[in-house]
Amino acid sequence: MNSYRSLRIALLGAGSVGSQVARLLLEHADELAARVGAPLELVGIGVRDPEAQRDVDLPRELMTSDLATLVAGADIVVELLGGIEPARTLLLDAIAEGADVVTANKALIAAHGPELFDAAAIVGAQVAYEAAVGGAIPIIRPLEQSLAGDRVTRIMGIVNGTTNFILDRMHTEGSSLADALATATELGYAEADPTADIEGFDAASKATILASLAFHTAVPGELVHREGITGVTDAMVEQAERNDRVIKLVAICERMSGDAGDRVSARVHPVSLPATHPLAAVREAKNAIFVTAEAAGDLMFYGAGAGGPETASAVLGDLVSIARRHVLGGPGRAASTHADLRVAPFGDVLARHELALTVADRPGVLAAVAGVFAEQGVSVESVRQDAGETSASLVLGTHTASEARIASVLEALDAHIDVERIDSVIRLID
Amino acid sequence: MNSYRSLRIALLGAGSVGSQVARLLLEHADELAARVGAPLELVGIGVRDPEAQRDVDLPRELMTSDLATLVAGADIVVELLGGIEPARTLLLDAIAEGADVVTANKALIAAHGPELFDAAAIVGAQVAYEAAVGGAIPIIRPLEQSLAGDRVTRIMGIVNGTTNFILDRMHTEGSSLADALATATELGYAEADPTADIEGFDAASKATILASLAFHTAVPGELVHREGITGVTDAMVEQAERNDRVIKLVAICERMSGDAGDRVSARVHPVSLPATHPLAAVREAKNAIFVTAEAAGDLMFYGAGAGGPETASAVLGDLVSIARRHVLGGPGRAASTHADLRVAPFGDVLARHELALTVADRPGVLAAVAGVFAEQGVSVESVRQDAGETSASLVLGTHTASEARIASVLEALDAHIDVERIDSVIRLID
Repeated sequence: MNSYRSLRIALLGAGSVGSQVARLLLEHADELAARVGAPLELVGIGVRDPEAQRDVDLPRELMTSDLATLVAGADIVVELLGGIEPARTLLLDAIAEGADVVTANKALIAAHGPELFDAAAIVGAQVAYEAAVGGAIPIIRPLEQSLAGDRVTRIMGIVNGTTNFILDRMHTEGSSLADALATATELGYAEADPTADIEGFDAASKATILASLAFHTAVPGELVHREGITGVTDAMVEQAERNDRVIKLVAICERMSGDAGDRVSARVHPVSLPATHPLAAVREAKNAIFVTAEAAGDLMFYGAGAGGPETASAVLGDLVSIARRHVLGGPGRAASTHADLRVAPFGDVLARHELALTVADRPGVLAAVAGVFAEQGVSVESVRQDAGETSASLVLGTHTASEARIASVLEALDAHIDVERIDSVIRLID
Repeated sequence: MNSYRSLRIALLGAGSVGSQVARLLLEHADELAARVGAPLELVGIGVRDPEAQRDVDLPRELMTSDLATLVAGADIVVELLGGIEPARTLLLDAIAEGADVVTANKALIAAHGPELFDAAAIVGAQVAYEAAVGGAIPIIRPLEQSLAGDRVTRIMGIVNGTTNFILDRMHTEGSSLADALATATELGYAEADPTADIEGFDAASKATILASLAFHTAVPGELVHREGITGVTDAMVEQAERNDRVIKLVAICERMSGDAGDRVSARVHPVSLPATHPLAAVREAKNAIFVTAEAAGDLMFYGAGAGGPETASAVLGDLVSIARRHVLGGPGRAASTHADLRVAPFGDVLARHELALTVADRPGVLAAVAGVFAEQGVSVESVRQDAGETSASLVLGTHTASEARIASVLEALDAHIDVERIDSVIRLID
C-alpha cells in the first residue's frame, strides 16, 4: 500500500476552515496516510499575506502568496478562498493540469459548477464539494450516491445557520429580529455585513447546488426565487406559536409533476412549520436537510452547518476519497445532468399561505375580502377575525394555490379600499 | 456512454424488499441506465418457490429456484435472502467469479463481513451493504467516506424500529410492554417470533457493523454486550418522564481513550435520554443514528429503518454506485481495518446509572445503602427517598463509573439485608 508516492496537496486559504484543514493534515498525517494508502503531503498554503496572524500556528515555510505557482505543482487542490475570483481561474488552471479539486465554495459551485465539472470531465479529474452545503453534514454524497437509485421528490433544508439562530432566538427569547441579529454578530454567527445571510443569498446558492444534484438537472442561480428573513416580524412569530408552529428559513427544491412531464423548482423563503416537524427541532445555528424520495420516504441529515473544524471534517472526507481514487485509480465523479428537467417559474409553485390583514371594522368587509380570494380562484381554508378599536385584524389561511394567484390576491388586497394594510404573509408547511 | 453492454443483475429473494427492488429495476430501467451509463438487466430472481404468491406482480419467467446457476452468470448479485446460509456460500461463489455484491443482510455482514471483504479484495470485487443498517438511511457511506478524514468518537443509534415503536408506545400511550408488542405485531412492525428485536440481537448485529466501520477495526459480534427491552417496565418509563427523559434502546459504539492507547466498545442496551436530545424525538418505528466525530461534532441521520420500498432505495443506491464503477472502472471498496484497535471488555465501559430500590423503612438504611456504593468506589450524585407503608423506595443516580463497579454494587445490594429488591437499573445519557 505505502509504496505509492506521496500526494501533493495545495491548500488555498488559511481562514477558519483552511487553518483547521492544515492542522488536521499535519497532526493526523499517519492516520490519513493509512486510510489513503499514500502520504498526503501539504506542499503549500496559498494566502494573501503570509505574515498575517492566524488562529492556528502553521509552519511559516508553507505559506506563499504565489497561488498560481502553488497550484501548478499539485495533485489535489483544496480551495477555501471563497468568492468567485481568483478561485475559479485557479481551479480551472489546476484542472487543466489534471489536478483534482476539493472546494467548500458554495458561491463558486452554484454559479460555475457546470463549468468546473465539464473541465474536470475532459481530463478525468474530480471535483468534490461536500463542505459547500451543510458544513459538516454529509449531504452531497448521500444525494449523489446513496439515493442514486431512487427519485428525490423534495428537499427542504435549513442551510443557513445565521438565520436559523436569529429565528430561534425570536421564538425562544422573544427577541426582535434586530436584537437577535446583534446577538448573532456578537457570538460570531453573523458577519459584519449580514446581507448574504439574512437576505437569503447564501441559502439560495445552496438551493441551486442541491436542486441540480437531486434532480440531475442544471438549475441556474437566477431561477432560484429568494426571500430572506427581514420580513419576519415579532407578530408573525407570536402568531406561529399560537398555532404550535415555528418559523424557519428553508431552501426548498421540488420536483413538480405535471401532464407535460416533470419540472423542478428551487426557492428560498421563510415557512411556518408544525412544531412536531423534525426541522422544527433544529435549534441555534445548526443545519438540517430533510429529503423526501419516492422509495426511501423521509430522511433527515442534521449537524453543524458551519465552523472551522466542522467544515474541515467535510473537506478532509472529500480529500481522502479523492486521494484514495488517485492512488487506486478510477473515474472522477461527474455531475449528472442527464434528466435535464425544465425549471418551473416561481408563479407555478403551489403552496398554502397565511395572510394577516388589518381591515376596516364595518359590516360587509369580510365578504368583500373573501370575494378577492374567490375572484383569483384561491380557496380560503380558515378565517379568524379579531375586532380592534377602529379596525379589525383578519388572519386567513388558504388551501393550496399557485404563487401567481396569491400574488394577484395580494395585489388586489393592497389596492382594496377596506384593507388598511397587509400585515404579513407566510407559507405553511404541513 | 450507452455503448457499454448491459450489466447482468441476479436478485436473490423476492420478499418485501426484493420484490420492490425488482419492481424499481423494471419500472425505472431507463432512468437507471442513464445514471449508470449502461442498462441494468435483471436476469433472474432466485426464490425458494417460483410459484408462490407475491405482493408485487413480477414476471414469472424471471423466477428460478436454482440460485447457484443464477449467481454464476451475474455481474452483480443482490442478496436479500437474509440469514447466514445459503447467502454466505452463494456470495462467496459469486465473488470468486468476480461478481460484485449488494446485500441488506445485517446478520451476514456482522458475522462474516471480514470473510466477504477479504474474498472481494482478492479479485477486486465490491461488497456494498448500505441497507444492512438503518434501512433507507444513508449511514454506511457517510461513515466510510464522508467522515474518512475525521475521527469518530461515538455512535449512538436507534437501529431497531420494532423496539423503538414499543418504547414510544409505552411513553406516549402508557401501554405496557406486552400491549405495545401486541400492537407492533398487529401493525406488522414485529415478527411472529420477536426475539431478535426485543432481545437486542438485531441491534447488536448493527452495532458490530457500525463499530467495525467507524473505528477501522474488526469488532467481533461476540464482544458486543447486549441487553434488550424486556426489562423495561412501566415504572421505569414513568420515572423517566418525571425527569423529562425518554427511554430508548440504543446501539452504542465508542472510542475509549486511555494511557495504553485507544480501545473501542460496542454495546446495545436501553438508556434514559433527556427529552431535548435529538434521538428522543425519534418516534414510532423510525431509526436515527447520532454520530459524534472530533472535528465534525454531532451529526444525526434520520429516516425509515425498515420497509420494502424504503430498504429497496438503499439497495438500489448501492447497485447504481457499484454498476457505475463497473462501467467506468475503479477500485472496490475494501473494508478498512488498519487501526485494529482492541475491544474493551464491557466491565471497563463508563456510564452513569440510575437505580431504583425498595428498601426497609427504618433509620440507618440510607447510610447502609450509600455505604455499598462507597465500598465499590462509586460516587452517588443524587438520591430521592419516598416512604411507603412498610418499606421505602430509593432512587439513586451515580456519577460516571465503570460497568464492573456498578455490577459489584448491584451484587452487594442484591445480598444486602436492608434491600428488599432492586426495582430497576438504567443508564443515563446526558
